[in-house]
Amino acid sequence: MSDSMNTTLWPVDTHRSETGGIAIAGHSLDDLASEYGTPLYVFSEAELRGNCREVLSAFRDAWPNTRVVYAGKAGLNGTLIQVVTEEGLGLDVVSSGELAITLAAGVHPAEISFHGNNKGPDELRGAVRAGVGKIVLDNLDEIDRIAAIAKEEGTTTSALVRLNPGVDVHTHRNISTGITDSKFGFPIANGQARDAVERLLAYPHIDLLGYHTHIGSQLFDSDAYVAAIDEAVAFGAEMRRDHGIEMRHLSPGGGFGIAYLDEDEPKPANYWAAVITGALRDALTRHDMPDPVLTIEPGRSVAGPAGVAVYRVGSIKEIPGTRTYVAVDGGMADNIRPALYEARYTAAVANRHPVVAGSRDVAVVGKYCESGDILIGHVSLPDVRVNDLLAIPACGAYCLPMASNYNGAFKPAVIMVGPSGVRVMKKRETREDLFRNDPVLEAVAARS
Amino acid sequence: MSDSMNTTLWPVDTHRSETGGIAIAGHSLDDLASEYGTPLYVFSEAELRGNCREVLSAFRDAWPNTRVVYAGKAGLNGTLIQVVTEEGLGLDVVSSGELAITLAAGVHPAEISFHGNNKGPDELRGAVRAGVGKIVLDNLDEIDRIAAIAKEEGTTTSALVRLNPGVDVHTHRNISTGITDSKFGFPIANGQARDAVERLLAYPHIDLLGYHTHIGSQLFDSDAYVAAIDEAVAFGAEMRRDHGIEMRHLSPGGGFGIAYLDEDEPKPANYWAAVITGALRDALTRHDMPDPVLTIEPGRSVAGPAGVAVYRVGSIKEIPGTRTYVAVDGGMADNIRPALYEARYTAAVANRHPVVAGSRDVAVVGKYCESGDILIGHVSLPDVRVNDLLAIPACGAYCLPMASNYNGAFKPAVIMVGPSGVRVMKKRETREDLFRNDPVLEAVAARS
Repeated sequence: MSDSMNTTLWPVDTHRSETGGIAIAGHSLDDLASEYGTPLYVFSEAELRGNCREVLSAFRDAWPNTRVVYAGKAGLNGTLIQVVTEEGLGLDVVSSGELAITLAAGVHPAEISFHGNNKGPDELRGAVRAGVGKIVLDNLDEIDRIAAIAKEEGTTTSALVRLNPGVDVHTHRNISTGITDSKFGFPIANGQARDAVERLLAYPHIDLLGYHTHIGSQLFDSDAYVAAIDEAVAFGAEMRRDHGIEMRHLSPGGGFGIAYLDEDEPKPANYWAAVITGALRDALTRHDMPDPVLTIEPGRSVAGPAGVAVYRVGSIKEIPGTRTYVAVDGGMADNIRPALYEARYTAAVANRHPVVAGSRDVAVVGKYCESGDILIGHVSLPDVRVNDLLAIPACGAYCLPMASNYNGAFKPAVIMVGPSGVRVMKKRETREDLFRNDPVLEAVAARS
Repeated sequence: MSDSMNTTLWPVDTHRSETGGIAIAGHSLDDLASEYGTPLYVFSEAELRGNCREVLSAFRDAWPNTRVVYAGKAGLNGTLIQVVTEEGLGLDVVSSGELAITLAAGVHPAEISFHGNNKGPDELRGAVRAGVGKIVLDNLDEIDRIAAIAKEEGTTTSALVRLNPGVDVHTHRNISTGITDSKFGFPIANGQARDAVERLLAYPHIDLLGYHTHIGSQLFDSDAYVAAIDEAVAFGAEMRRDHGIEMRHLSPGGGFGIAYLDEDEPKPANYWAAVITGALRDALTRHDMPDPVLTIEPGRSVAGPAGVAVYRVGSIKEIPGTRTYVAVDGGMADNIRPALYEARYTAAVANRHPVVAGSRDVAVVGKYCESGDILIGHVSLPDVRVNDLLAIPACGAYCLPMASNYNGAFKPAVIMVGPSGVRVMKKRETREDLFRNDPVLEAVAARS
């Protein structure tokens, strides 16, 4: 008999086996850790595909003309891109590096949107030449730059203008992006969004499709979303009235919150679909506007719940009356979110059924030489021992893309488990990767 | 006529040339940026060598039997390692990756100390086999592990025990490491340090040389340092009395603060030498102990002031009444310290003499899709324009080692300028680096 895990938090195909170890898609984490080493990031193909299907069907049921694009900054990888595009999602990229990865993985340029608050001249030229579906304009400097590039290249580039709707949201300040004091977009309130659109009127090589807003990430509340859509549609109506510009596309971003802890209750995709399409319908009716194509840009909610980080316990240090430190073989080099955002996680012993009697509160810390390298400040982990495996759910987004080689760390191996078995998404780095691009070390490596 | 810059903040050989641009070692940052691209990290060889000489001579004048080891976690690179070892410093490493880099750069294993709160079995075996000079023991699990390994390998390993002295310091909580509630070391106060030493008595393959403490990083105050040395020597005296163990070595860490802003007044090396050797002399006298070898482990104060980050301005967004955002072509992917530690920096226009009349307060932000990607929240940068170069001093430590590929960023080029010209320390990454270890993307790259 096997026990299901909390599937809001763990991938849908996660179970505890009869012997007590955690398995995903029938693959024991203990076996996977033995074969691929630790730290190991394990993605569930079923969870990833399920998340794509859920958001796509929820929005298409409510608004048939919806495009869903995966926000690549949550984590880009060849295998992952192939899965999400097989499920019908497009891709959002924010740099020439992400564009190169996405094109190499086989995504059609028309399915790619290019974001960013400071795209370089080379990046813009690359995006125009590749023929990306939409470039999201973020400042006047780049409007001039891209217009010149499109003209030189003899092409027309489709674009959205990123509006700053001036709404505040309840999330970490580092990932709240829609307040007026922000580096992103053109504020509507002070006329700068209007200035941007009016500047575009002079540039025939840019086809203004519509507008983009993005208010933040890891959101749970709908109010700010509704307010941002109201502001964007009202602005679109003004531009239609004053300049005859139709709002053919509207992209109100993504940012749907996910569960990181057992007690988190994230809203399902159909909740967000109802909120967003309801707000859009109301605003369009109020302003007597035709329906735009709706673009939704989830990243965390697609990839986050699909990834589980697996670590091995190397040391347990009990400081009586103070704290018990359970040290694992990864930490801030592969997951900087706790140190950067005070992000909270939970963990479970993955290689066996822990004896639950006498639970104890421990800190799960990494192996990096920094006091801030604490993965989990407090978690109840009864009966954890040296050499146990610990699994941390909800590690599929924003961990690996921010991974570093701090303290000489090798970036971890990443695998996907599913019906067709185990696929390596990313091989674990080796010392050759640490030596790379360093002329002194490369010369030594070449001699040996 | 050229103007000197504030040499507490900028490398010693930094000047503004007649035409107003900043040059290091006579190399104009404008020319370097044109040749190597931006973001560019420029290290001054003169500053780096000067910092090594200053700390070495200050401590050797006060305590002839001093070893100075560079704390590699501040930043490891083949060229940098060669320079600091030419100046007579040893190396501190904290992982098998850092050990591999250091050995490849030609450092003699005896000159290497191996730290870390959770060294893996493979790492310990590698360190024992390489014959590193000292392994710093951090927990009971690894004492057992390393004793078994040394026995198996038929060798004796020299070790220090990391003591947790239970003193608090005034620095960012993420880099304060000597309080009792810490993942590092064995607390003296609760008897766990004694337990560790007594466990070692049973292990003839470990030669206990003495003790290590480390109370934090970016320190300006001496009190905590003095307290930590008092605690360590008192503990050493107890172990001598009770077990006849001589404290042949004492390593009270590093952590000397540097200037990040014009108004910062860091203490010079001879201040720290006087504090540390004075405290050591007093404590030894009090306990009637012979002189140990003193090991000092500076990282930030050696490399930090030697490195200058150079960015190009891509966009300037003025939000009237709110803030002006100056967006550069790097940010949190190459320097996460502002987002991670609320670290503060200053900047200067580097390609020309800015017109100083009418100074304005701006925010210098990066190009990454995150509101937290703010390099400098407030800095007076009169007359900054798109395409200007901005130079940020004091970027030689803890920026590059934590660099990531977030948002598809390429890790920046790093160069050293000095009397013998320009040396590439690290080549800028390319798309091939982003594709590496990803089987899907590597297959595409191999076909094209």
